[in-house]
Amino acid sequence: MIREITNNDILSMDKQMRTNLINSLSGIRPANLIGTISKNGVTNLAIFNSVMHIGANPPLMGFIMRPTSVERHTYNNIIDSGEFTINHVTEAFYKKAHQTSARYDVSEFNATGLEPFYSNNLKAPYVAISPVKIGLSFIDDQLIKSNNTRLIIGEIEEIIIDDHSLNEDNILQLQHTLSIGVGGLETYYSLQKIDQLPYAKANQ
Amino acid sequence: MIREITNNDILSMDKQMRTNLINSLSGIRPANLIGTISKNGVTNLAIFNSVMHIGANPPLMGFIMRPTSVERHTYNNIIDSGEFTINHVTEAFYKKAHQTSARYDVSEFNATGLEPFYSNNLKAPYVAISPVKIGLSFIDDQLIKSNNTRLIIGEIEEIIIDDHSLNEDNILQLQHTLSIGVGGLETYYSLQKIDQLPYAKANQ
Repeated sequence: MIREITNNDILSMDKQMRTNLINSLSGIRPANLIGTISKNGVTNLAIFNSVMHIGANPPLMGFIMRPTSVERHTYNNIIDSGEFTINHVTEAFYKKAHQTSARYDVSEFNATGLEPFYSNNLKAPYVAISPVKIGLSFIDDQLIKSNNTRLIIGEIEEIIIDDHSLNEDNILQLQHTLSIGVGGLETYYSLQKIDQLPYAKANQ
Repeated sequence: MIREITNNDILSMDKQMRTNLINSLSGIRPANLIGTISKNGVTNLAIFNSVMHIGANPPLMGFIMRPTSVERHTYNNIIDSGEFTINHVTEAFYKKAHQTSARYDVSEFNATGLEPFYSNNLKAPYVAISPVKIGLSFIDDQLIKSNNTRLIIGEIEEIIIDDHSLNEDNILQLQHTLSIGVGGLETYYSLQKIDQLPYAKANQ
C-alpha cells in the first residue's frame, strides 16, 4: 500500500528506525575502503559509502566524514600524511570490508585479514585484493555546516586497475571489476549492467 | 593486464576520455530525478547521480550541482520556490530519465512524456511512475571551493512509498523498488541484493 511518511512521522520515530530509513533513502551508493597511515606508521582501513566524483580536471574525488571516533583515525591520518587511498569493494570481501567499521585497537588490516598493497608513489596502503585502487593527495577539507560533517577532497595521483576494466570510451565497467554497492549502512547489492546511453540531445 | 595511470597520464588525456574515466571511478551512484517548479509555474525535471544522505535528525539529503545551464533551471527553481522532489529511477523509465539531461525549451515532463504527480503538501512535481518519491524544503546551499560546484541541502518533508519497500528494520529495499544505479554519467546498472550485515563489533 502506498504510504505517506511526513516530517513529523520521521522526527517521532525510534532513533534506529529513523537512521535506517533516512540512510537508505538516497538509493544505491558505492562501497569503498579508505586506506591511510599514521605518523607512527600504523595503517588504518575504513569503509565509506560517500565517495563521490568532484571534478575531472584536475581529477578530484571526495567523501563525507562524520564526526565519530572510528573515522577520526582516517581524518587524522589524512591531515598528517596528506594521502589516502580509495579501494572498490567486491562481493569477494564485503564482509571483511564491513567489519572495518568496528572499533579496533589495532590496524583494520590485521583485524580483518585484508592484505595491504603498497605502490612506489604513496605511503598510504591500498587493499591488495581490490580491483580498483586509487591513490590521492589531500587537497581540501570543508565543513558542511548543516550537520557538522566534513567533505574531504583529494586529487588523484594514481589509479591501479586492470586494462580490461575500462571500455573503449575509458568508462570503468563495474560488471567487470565486480564492484558492489551499498544501500544505507549495511545492505549490499551486486550490479548488473543494463545499458550505456549516449549524451542526450533534445532532438532525439 | 594491471596498469598504473598517473596524474600526468590523466591530465594529458583527451578531454572526453578524462571525463569518462574520472566520472566513473567512484563506483556506483544512485539515479534520481529532481523535480522543481518555477515562479511562472513551469515544471522542470533533471537527472542527478549525486544525491546523498546528509543526516537523519533532522532528516537531510543533498546533491551536488554543477554550474551548467541545464542544471541552472533546477537551481533557480529551488531558490525561488524553496522546494524540490527526489524521485528514484527504475529500469522501466531510465531512458526517459536520462533524456532529461538534454537542453529543452519546454518542461522535461512534456519533452520525455514522464507524468508529473502532485501531493497536497508541495508545489514541486514528483515523477508519477517513481516508486520512491521524496519531497524536500530547501535548507542550505554551500559552495564547494575546490571546483565551484554547489552542495544543495534539503530537509525531507514527506516520503511517498509502498509500505512493502521498507523491511522490518525500516531499511529501504532497493530490490523491491527496482531502483537502479549509474556508473559515470551514462552507464546504468540494476541491483541485486546480496546481504544485510549487522552493525560491526570488534569481537565478531
